[in-house]
Formats: sequence, structure tokens, C-alpha cells
Amino acid sequence: MDIQLIKELQERYGITFHDVDILEQAFTHSSYVNEHRNLNLSDNERLEFLGDAVLELLVSQYLYREYPTLPEGKLTKMRAAIVREDSLSMFAKACHFDQYVRLGKGEENSGGRKRPALLCDLFEAFLGALYLDQGTEAVHEFIKKVIFPKVAAGAFSHEMDHKTRLQEVLQKSGDVFIDYRLIKEEGPAHERIFWTEVYVDEKLIGKGQGKSKKLAEQNAAENALSGLQG
Amino acid sequence: MDIQLIKELQERYGITFHDVDILEQAFTHSSYVNEHRNLNLSDNERLEFLGDAVLELLVSQYLYREYPTLPEGKLTKMRAAIVREDSLSMFAKACHFDQYVRLGKGEENSGGRKRPALLCDLFEAFLGALYLDQGTEAVHEFIKKVIFPKVAAGAFSHEMDHKTRLQEVLQKSGDVFIDYRLIKEEGPAHERIFWTEVYVDEKLIGKGQGKSKKLAEQNAAENALSGLQG
Repeated sequence: MDIQLIKELQERYGITFHDVDILEQAFTHSSYVNEHRNLNLSDNERLEFLGDAVLELLVSQYLYREYPTLPEGKLTKMRAAIVREDSLSMFAKACHFDQYVRLGKGEENSGGRKRPALLCDLFEAFLGALYLDQGTEAVHEFIKKVIFPKVAAGAFSHEMDHKTRLQEVLQKSGDVFIDYRLIKEEGPAHERIFWTEVYVDEKLIGKGQGKSKKLAEQNAAENALSGLQG
Repeated sequence: MDIQLIKELQERYGITFHDVDILEQAFTHSSYVNEHRNLNLSDNERLEFLGDAVLELLVSQYLYREYPTLPEGKLTKMRAAIVREDSLSMFAKACHFDQYVRLGKGEENSGGRKRPALLCDLFEAFLGALYLDQGTEAVHEFIKKVIFPKVAAGAFSHEMDHKTRLQEVLQKSGDVFIDYRLIKEEGPAHERIFWTEVYVDEKLIGKGQGKSKKLAEQNAAENALSGLQG
């Protein structure tokens, strides 16, 4: 077992595995097993199967709680954006997991260590191993450090439109009344422009314009958001 | 809240909700909410989002433990067979949930109460509500009674395995073209019977029948296998 991995997990995430074999299994790709049949190793694929489901539940629970008014369709889109291959391979790299995975020579030579699908599976396998070793709460603590800060910073919120995001941001500090007001419309029918203002509890927080009322409201919400975050 | 539902959950499954509102929400379809806007109700869609993930984890964990040597690919297939729409709508009916869901009139009149997608969502929403009310272990206890006995009895492995196994057996001697043909279907909608034949490279190797096309194909594969092995 790579002592450096054990050290890094302890130092960065406060994680110490009781069963080091299961940690080792999580970092063992099938190509490595195939090249070392005499060692009778297990690859990380079954752990990946389990970790995938643990991750799905914890992300779902987080989104359900953090976005209490978001409809199911948008929750589903956001969840899909978080647990998809690119995202998980990015998290695997952020945790330096790519440095520790054991690959067969063929896989190594063809660049497997950088392959998103392989890194995504590795990340899930690690979660599966942590789940078996220490239960749901330990996995939750880990992804609270690794994944949720990115979600909170809006890395996956492009799935959400500006009006929805503004509502989510404002409602974190309690119930608010958000009001979009059409101020002006100008121009001939085929190139009409709409001006909108957005108010929260009667205070103006953003202005926008666009070729339809809807687009003007989205623009106002976008401007309000950058005002709030700026 | 339907008192009969509360009674049935207690008597059949020993479940008593602390928060009856969340149980009610689980049994409230969006069509009902739309027809009663003045009541300011919430539909069951967000609960379904959560319940789906809880179910996925518990089924994954069960399969991981029960089938310690099954490779990841087969675990994934079995999980998909268990959590797919038909299966979950069947479980919803077995629990009599179809009797208690609140639907709008349009949905009711168009047969929504029997619609597999609606019943599948209802089942997942119930699991989501139970999870929020009492945590993972309570959901686990429930599906241990409702789902796992069916899995253990082979309701899902059986169904998958014959076709998969037939393919594996035949492919040992090289690539083959396996073709399932629907020969006949008979009887009224509620007790229709399907007849299927399976051909390999245009040669008939097995016949089967069943209450659905799928079951008839599985039966044909099973008969083909015993023919090959006999």
C-alpha cells in the first residue's frame, strides 16, 4: 500500500482506514489485476458500483436541503451535472487520486491515468471503500470538503436560470417578496425592447432589458445577482 | 389525511409517521395540486427525487452483500431491473399505494391511478418521505419486507439471466446472431399470453411463452438452454 496515499488522506481529510485492504482495492484498476493474476487481487469495479449510489444519495440530500424551492426537474439536472464523468474525474484529480491508482502497463502507456472515465470510476470506488469502512457519515464529511463548496460557489448552477438562482440566494435569509416590474417597452413589434426592474421587499436590486419580458426579467435577475455577489 | 392509509402502514409495516404532512405530500400528485391552488399544497415530485436516490443506495448495498462474487456489470443490470418503472409500480400496487394517491380529475379520468410511471414516482416519493421522517434504517426495514424477498426469490436475476446466459453460452463458439421472434399473442388485455421463438443464425433453438413479451423471451431462452445442455 502506498504510504504516501495513507499520509495524504490523513493530513488533508482526516481519514484513516481501518481496513487498508479495501482502500488498496479502491486504487486497483482491472488492468493491474489482469497483469498480476498470480497475486489474486480484486479490482475496484464493485466498489465503484457501491460508491456511485452513496454519492448519488448524499448529493441528492444536499440539493434537496440547500434548494428548498427548486422543482424536481432542476434538482435532477443539477445532480446529473455534479455526478457526471467530467466532474468526478476533476474531483479525483483535485484529491491527487490519479497519482495513486495502480494500472496495468498497457493502460498506463495509453494514458489511462488521465482518462476521465477511469478517474471517475476511481473516485466512486474510493467513496464505496470509505462507505464500507466507516459508513455514510464519513463519506458525507469527505464530500462536504471536496464537492459541496464547489456546488455552493455555483460551479453547477448553470443548470439554473438567473431568476431561480436569485430566488434561492435571497431565500436563504428567510422569506422575501421578489417582484419584477415592466418599466418601459419601445420599438416596432418585430424588434421591441423591454425594460424591467426587480425589487425585493420594495427595494430596487437590479435592472435589465431584453427582446421579451422573460429575457428582460432574466437579465434583471442576472444583474441583481452580480450586484449581490460583487 | 386518509386514516385508512395510516392504519394500513401501521398494521402491515409497523410504520408510524411523526410528520403526517410529509406522508400526505408523498401521496399528492401534481395534478391534484394544480386543481386545488387555493390550498397551497406541495406535490410529491421533490420527495420522489430524494426517494429514488435512497432506494438506489439500499438496493446497491443489498446486491453488493448478497452477491459477493458477481461482477459490477451484472450488479448494475440487476439494480436496473429492480428500480425500473414496471418493478416499482408493481411494488406500489402490492402496498396498495394506488388506492391512496390524490389525483386531479383529469388524471383520474384518464386512468392515472393505474399508470406505471405515476405509481413508480409515488413509490419513490413514499420512500423519500419515510427517509426524511425516520432515516435510512426505516427505509431499509420497509424494503426488506417489500422488495428484497422478491429479489431473493429470483424475480430479477432469473428474468435477466436466461437471455444473458444463452448469449454467453452461444458466443463461446464465436459471434452468433440471436433473434427473438414474437409468434402469437392471445387473450384479453389483463391476461394476455405471448409466444416467442428464439433463433440462432436462423435456426430455431427454443420456444417460450409468458404474460409479457419479455417473459416469453426469457422462457424461450431458458428452454433453449436446457435443449443445448440436455
